[in-house]
Amino acid sequence: MRSYAVIGTGALGGFYGAKLQHAGTDVHFLVNSDYDRIKTSGLKIRSTDGDFTLPRVNAYNRASQMPACDVVLVCLKTTHNHLLTSILPAVVKPSSIVIVMQNGLGTEAEIAQILPQQEILGGLCFICSNKVAPGEIHHLDYGQIKLGCYADGYRQAGITPIMERIAEDFRTAGIEISLNEDLLLARWQKLVWNIPYNGLSVVLDATTDRLMADPHTSKLVTRLMYEIQLIAAAYDRQITDDFIRMMLSYTIEMTPYRTSMKIDYDEGRPLEVAAMFEAPLAFARAKNIDAPQIEMLTQQLQFLNAYSLNQSKI
Amino acid sequence: MRSYAVIGTGALGGFYGAKLQHAGTDVHFLVNSDYDRIKTSGLKIRSTDGDFTLPRVNAYNRASQMPACDVVLVCLKTTHNHLLTSILPAVVKPSSIVIVMQNGLGTEAEIAQILPQQEILGGLCFICSNKVAPGEIHHLDYGQIKLGCYADGYRQAGITPIMERIAEDFRTAGIEISLNEDLLLARWQKLVWNIPYNGLSVVLDATTDRLMADPHTSKLVTRLMYEIQLIAAAYDRQITDDFIRMMLSYTIEMTPYRTSMKIDYDEGRPLEVAAMFEAPLAFARAKNIDAPQIEMLTQQLQFLNAYSLNQSKI
Repeated sequence: MRSYAVIGTGALGGFYGAKLQHAGTDVHFLVNSDYDRIKTSGLKIRSTDGDFTLPRVNAYNRASQMPACDVVLVCLKTTHNHLLTSILPAVVKPSSIVIVMQNGLGTEAEIAQILPQQEILGGLCFICSNKVAPGEIHHLDYGQIKLGCYADGYRQAGITPIMERIAEDFRTAGIEISLNEDLLLARWQKLVWNIPYNGLSVVLDATTDRLMADPHTSKLVTRLMYEIQLIAAAYDRQITDDFIRMMLSYTIEMTPYRTSMKIDYDEGRPLEVAAMFEAPLAFARAKNIDAPQIEMLTQQLQFLNAYSLNQSKI
Repeated sequence: MRSYAVIGTGALGGFYGAKLQHAGTDVHFLVNSDYDRIKTSGLKIRSTDGDFTLPRVNAYNRASQMPACDVVLVCLKTTHNHLLTSILPAVVKPSSIVIVMQNGLGTEAEIAQILPQQEILGGLCFICSNKVAPGEIHHLDYGQIKLGCYADGYRQAGITPIMERIAEDFRTAGIEISLNEDLLLARWQKLVWNIPYNGLSVVLDATTDRLMADPHTSKLVTRLMYEIQLIAAAYDRQITDDFIRMMLSYTIEMTPYRTSMKIDYDEGRPLEVAAMFEAPLAFARAKNIDAPQIEMLTQQLQFLNAYSLNQSKI
C-alpha cells in the first residue's frame, strides 16, 4: 500500500487526503495554521458525495517530522510555493512521486529544479470546495482530477505505469480521475477557463453567471480564451475552437459560481497571480506572442493584489 | 454683446455660465433637476479664483421657453445627448454658434446631423469642479478651455474670426482660453489622459496617484496611451511620445485626483462610456486599428455601468 503526504491541508488537500484515508490509505498531513485543531479533532468533511469525519489523522506542523512518503500531493496555494524548497526535500525519498495539485502553470518545472531526479506529475483538480472552519471542509461540487506526467520543458510524456497505479488509489477512494498523455495541453485547457473567469471575477466583483449574461464581458471572456489558444499554439498545443465554445456554454449552464480567486480576494488572502497569470504570460513572451488582454488583466490583478495585501497588514 | 445659452447647469455649465454672467454677459441657463432652486436662489460659486453669488439668473426648465442665443454652450453630461435633438433646434437661430463643452469624441458630428447649417465649435474643458448642492458649484482647480472649429469629418479647420470673438468673451470673464487649429488633434490629446485614468479609476476603484504609484498599472496606463496614439495616427493626427511622457509626469505630479467618471460611478450616475470610449473605438474600427486594451477597458466599463444602473433602479 502506497503512503501519501498531503502538503497543505486546506479545501483541496484536506478533501482529497481525507477521502484517501477514509478508504484505508496511509496519509500524512502537513498543516499550517489549523495544526492544533486538526491534531486533536481530525478532519470533518461535508460533501455532496456523503459526509464523514476522521477523528484522528497524522498531522504535522513541520515537514521535517513527516515520514518520507511514496506519493507527495502538493496542495498549497501557489502563493506559498516559496516554501517548497524547504518542505519537499524533507518528505521525499528517491522513489517518491510528487504530484502538483495546484492551479496555474510552471510549478512542476520549479519542483524539477528543487528535485531534479524526482518523478513529477501534474494533477489538475476540477473541484469546488471550501474550508469553512479549521479542519472542516465543505465539498460543494465536482472533484475530478486529470493526471499528467511532467517531463523536461513540458514535452509530451504519455501515460506511465505509476500513473495507472496512483489513479487506482484515487478511484478506490471514490475520486474520479483520468490519465492525460499531455500535461501541458491539459494545463492550457484549464487556463482557458481559469484566466478569464478568475481574473474578471476579481476585477469586476462578479460571479460567472453575471460575466456571461452581459454581452460585453461575455465577448471579453471569449477573446481572452482565444489569446490562450494563441499562446498554446506557439507550444504546439491545439486548443480547438470547439473546446472554447464548450467552455463558454458549460459556464453558462453552471450555477452562479464564485471563483477561487474571488474567494481569496474577498477573504483578504494573496491572489494566485504568479502561477495563474504571470507564468502563462512568461510562456507567451518566450515565444514573442502578444497577449494584450491577458497582460492587462494581469496588471489589474497585480494592482488589486498589492493593495489588498497592504490593507490587510494595516 | 453676445447672448449665451448654457445647456445643462451642473458642475461645468453652472461654473462657466456664472463666470460669464458675473462679468456682465447676458446668459440663459437650461436647468433640469435643480430648476426650482436656481430659479429662486440663483447660483453660488465657491472657487479658487474667488467666491461669488448670482442671486438671480435666467433659468428655464424647457428649451422652448429660452430665447435663441448667439452662443450655445452644450454642457450636458454626454449620457444625456439624446436630448439634444429636441433642445438645440429650440435655442438656435441661423447665426448661433454651438460649442460642445463635453468630454469624449463625436458630439460635434452628431450635432452637425441635427443642425447641418450651424457653425459648431468644440470646447475642451480642463477643469476640476463639482456640484455640491443644487445651484452650488465648487471649483477646485484648473479651468482652461481649448477651442477648436468643427468641420465635416473632423478635417482641420483652422482658427476663425468668430473663435477669436468668443475667446474674448471668456477672457473678459476671467476664463483662460486658447484657440486650436485642429479640433480632432485636441480631442485625441485629451483622450490620452481621459481614457486610461477615467476608465481604470472606475474599474480598479482608484485615484490617479495610486494608479501611477503601482508599477503594473502605470505600465498599463502607458500602453493605453500608445493605443490612442495609434488610432490618432490613422487619422493623420500625431500624438508624440513626448506628449505621452508629459501626460504621465504631469499626472504623477498632480495631487491625488478622483476622475469625473469615478465621481459619476460613486454617485450612481450613468457613465460617459459612449462618448469617451465607444466613440474612439468606433474611430479605430473604421480604420481597422486593433486597440485591444481600450476595447477591454470599454467592455469592463459597459459591464459596471449596466450593473450600476440596474442597482440604482432597485
